[in-house]
Amino acid sequence: MISYRTPVLEEWVDYNGHLRDAFYLLIFSYATDAFMAEIGVDPARDRRSLFTLECHLNYLHEVKLGTQVQVHTRVIGHDRKRLHLYHSLHAGDDEQPLATTEQMLLHVDLAGPRSTPFGEATVQCLERLQAGQADEPSPINIGRTITL
Amino acid sequence: MISYRTPVLEEWVDYNGHLRDAFYLLIFSYATDAFMAEIGVDPARDRRSLFTLECHLNYLHEVKLGTQVQVHTRVIGHDRKRLHLYHSLHAGDDEQPLATTEQMLLHVDLAGPRSTPFGEATVQCLERLQAGQADEPSPINIGRTITL
Repeated sequence: MISYRTPVLEEWVDYNGHLRDAFYLLIFSYATDAFMAEIGVDPARDRRSLFTLECHLNYLHEVKLGTQVQVHTRVIGHDRKRLHLYHSLHAGDDEQPLATTEQMLLHVDLAGPRSTPFGEATVQCLERLQAGQADEPSPINIGRTITL
Repeated sequence: MISYRTPVLEEWVDYNGHLRDAFYLLIFSYATDAFMAEIGVDPARDRRSLFTLECHLNYLHEVKLGTQVQVHTRVIGHDRKRLHLYHSLHAGDDEQPLATTEQMLLHVDLAGPRSTPFGEATVQCLERLQAGQADEPSPINIGRTITL
């Protein structure tokens, strides 16, 4: 699914006119927010949210100011409280990613804050999304370790 | 070494008053810029820079608006063109990190842009820094894989 679309904004680029590493993650972070709404996790309504525990990013291409980008999102897996999510960043409809990220997210009751199991509707939504991805190509850069 | 200090700014926090995941990386990104200057890689003078190839982040604690944070930086290793760098984020002088990141960075000639070997002075500086870390505690979260 396409979870987020944006042009690359002026405040996100460096002295060279290229998207700075942290702002790739900001775009992915907005995509996670949009995905969170999609699966029915709503901080304003239910005081539930997703906290990022861990993430890994691979930067494949430079991205210039003004480029129209979109984020494709996939569910890699989940357990009772955690979601393993994958995003890739693309220029327009281009299939080749500009960057990828995998993230481990924790479902949190903001009243604690403390971790709490996903609601039943969210679990069903995650399983439906996962089943719907069966025909898509395998995501790249999953399970990587950083090493020289 | 301490490579960067900043308060947590208003534009970096979410609806909850906590530092958003991408802005931890922005602070680390500024720390990498400061470290780059430290090792004599200077885009303005030499048209050389460091491009981020890959990074992994672990989020250990929430960080609130206004917190004074500092980044500790270590050299994990390097080869002719690549630098394996580690940052941890701390509240003030606290030894317990709020977050950690390891990054693989590529030395680039911006005229290409194309990868290019580090200069001799930079290599000596990296080796001096690495030798100087021998007494520090081992960094956590190195070489991790994301998995449920």
